[in-house]
Parts: sequence; C-alpha cells; structure tokens
Amino acid sequence: MSKELIFYTTPQSRGAIVHWMLEEIGQPYSVRVVEYGTSMKAPEYLAVNPMGKVPAIQHGDVVVTEAAAICAYLADAFPEAGLAPALDNRGEYYRWLFFAAACGEPAMSDYATGWKADTADLQRRFGYGSFELTFDTLAGWLAGRSHVAGDRFSAADVYVASLLNFGLGFDLIPRKPEFEAYVAPLLERAAKKRADAIIQELMTKDAPATA
Amino acid sequence: MSKELIFYTTPQSRGAIVHWMLEEIGQPYSVRVVEYGTSMKAPEYLAVNPMGKVPAIQHGDVVVTEAAAICAYLADAFPEAGLAPALDNRGEYYRWLFFAAACGEPAMSDYATGWKADTADLQRRFGYGSFELTFDTLAGWLAGRSHVAGDRFSAADVYVASLLNFGLGFDLIPRKPEFEAYVAPLLERAAKKRADAIIQELMTKDAPATA
Repeated sequence: MSKELIFYTTPQSRGAIVHWMLEEIGQPYSVRVVEYGTSMKAPEYLAVNPMGKVPAIQHGDVVVTEAAAICAYLADAFPEAGLAPALDNRGEYYRWLFFAAACGEPAMSDYATGWKADTADLQRRFGYGSFELTFDTLAGWLAGRSHVAGDRFSAADVYVASLLNFGLGFDLIPRKPEFEAYVAPLLERAAKKRADAIIQELMTKDAPATA
Repeated sequence: MSKELIFYTTPQSRGAIVHWMLEEIGQPYSVRVVEYGTSMKAPEYLAVNPMGKVPAIQHGDVVVTEAAAICAYLADAFPEAGLAPALDNRGEYYRWLFFAAACGEPAMSDYATGWKADTADLQRRFGYGSFELTFDTLAGWLAGRSHVAGDRFSAADVYVASLLNFGLGFDLIPRKPEFEAYVAPLLERAAKKRADAIIQELMTKDAPATA
C-alpha cells in the first residue's frame, strides 16, 4: 500500500475529475503537470499515455488512463475510503459510471461540435441514441436521489457530478432541475474544494508573467 | 446467489456482447427478446431501460444497462467464474474496458457516419482524440498480448474483442494485424460459440415466414 501514486494532469482539463477523486481517497500523491500541445505530446509522456491526453495515473508499475477508469480503480485500490460500493449497489454503480463515460461524454462532445444523430438509423447506431434521450434518461435516474448508487457517495458520483458540472457550466447539457439539485451539494464536499484550490494554484503558477 | 437473471436483447445488436459474457459466467439466465422500434420502445421495456436500448439485465431487483457495465457487474457478481481480475491487474482491466466503451465505440460510430474530429481543437474536446489515435493506441497495447489485463482472460476481453470483431466485420476500424491476432483465438472460446449458436437460433425463430 506504500506504492508511489503519480498523477499526470493539467489545469482546465478532465484531470479535475481525478483530482477530486484523489482528494476523496486521502492518500499522498504527487502531481506532474503536462501542457497541451507540448509536454503532453512529448515522448516522455507518450510512454505513459500514448493518447497524449490527461488525466493518467501511475500507481507502482500500473498505469491507468481514462478518467472514469481511474475513479473505478482508485475506489477498488483504496477500499478504506469507502468509494466502491458493495455488490448490492455495484450494478447501479457500473451502470451510471459507464453511462456517463460512454453515453454522456460523447453525446455532449457531439452536441458541442454541432453533430446530431437525428435519424432513427443513426440513433440505433450510436450507443447514446440521441443527446436528448441521454440526458432525459440520466435526469430520470437522478430525480430525488442524492447519489448514483444506493444511498452513499461513491466514485461514480465523482465522475457523474463532474460531467454534469462541466456541462452546466459551459451550457453543453440541458439545464434540468434534477441535475442542479444533484450536483450542488456534491460540489460542497471538502475534497472537491481542496482539489479546486490546488487546481487554482497550479493555474496561477503556470500563467505566463504579465508584468 | 439464486436471484433470477433476466437478459433483454435482440439478435444483431450489442446484446451479443452480453450473450457471450453470460455464457462465460455459466449460470442459468432467461432471454427476453425485444424488437427494434416496437417492443424496445414500449412502456414495459422502457421501465427496464428508459433508453429503449438493448442489452439490459435484471438480476434480482438490480437492473444494469450498457454492455460494458453489464460485463463488469457480472464479473464481480459471479467471482467463481474468474472474469474479474485481482487488484494487481484491475488498473489495466478498467483502463481498457472504459477505453473501448468511451473511446473505441464513439470513435467508430462517428467514423461510420462520416463525422471526423479533424482539428486540434476538436481532438482536445473529444475524449477519444481522433479515430486514428484511438485505434493506434489500442493496437499498441494489444501487440503481443493474448489478453487485455495480465495474462488471463477477463470480462474486459469479452468487451474489447466484441468491439473489434464487430469493427473488423463491418470495416469500421483499421484492419490492423494486432487486432486480428488478438481477436481470432478469443472467438474460438466455447462460450462464444454457444452464444453465437443461440443468437442464430433466435434469428431463425424471429424471421418472418417466407412461404
């Protein structure tokens, strides 16, 4: 359990999801900042993640990429943090973690860039069906719930709330009351605030001198 | 462990992934066929999956949707099948399960419908970067490997091999030797062949009478 935990990220990226998750875990980790277009595409980092994307983590000799995968891995690797539900709630946990990553994310990205799956044939082809269907379905599940899986906070909440918070902040998803009611209290968690403060500090440090 | 396991699917759909997984698990399950455009969008099935999509499973009172989530859930729910790796290989397992579901699937769908993320800005926005990058990265991991995580077959192989097999079959992914070398032996597994035979039977049964 004393394997080194290294976190590769850059401010204003999907790395913020993992930053929050790491603060929830509460174990020591070191941050290595890689920059868009330069160190993120350099051989040293491509050896960690050949996609040239953040986030990634290295835990001992294991590399994990993809924000949702990292959340799921850290939850299992540090069971004392209680972020991986027991089997009774594990179906819901995986369902919405994969739904957010493999339907929510691509539906939002396609929407943001103006691409629409707007015929029945396309909607059958696309895992997410349509943008509207995806976010209606997620809103239906979240209505009246504080957490995605059972009645406890889990790694799936870190991922789902991060996606929705990003989407709401940039007007990339429908502004549904179910989303706002679910996300708002989660943003108040101490771990989320700690992660945000560290990200803010990284941004200040990285900003080019202006005077 | 004697909870009823119900599998909602239709032949020629992503349900085939879960069919293979269920045969690997080796526990009894019942199949309920829902049809595109009719029973798949009817209230009875929408109560199971509001997306109106297959596959879905119901295990006792737990519903799980999304093929990759179902694979991960079944692997954890039936540990005696040995399809969920121990912690040492769990990072790789989640990494490539999420990579295939949240990068491979959308990259393939976008490609199939003619949409290309072809600027640096788009490639930053899209989780999968670009179609080429996604499948180059996956090929890089699979080179010389028989399995996605460690040296044992797992639920991640069911998902990744199914995606690649579909993509190769319909010319929707690059025909890389790494993919063919990885997929071919997995298709020979007894559970895969049993699943294919059942799907074939369902198709014959469902076909409209022609004489």
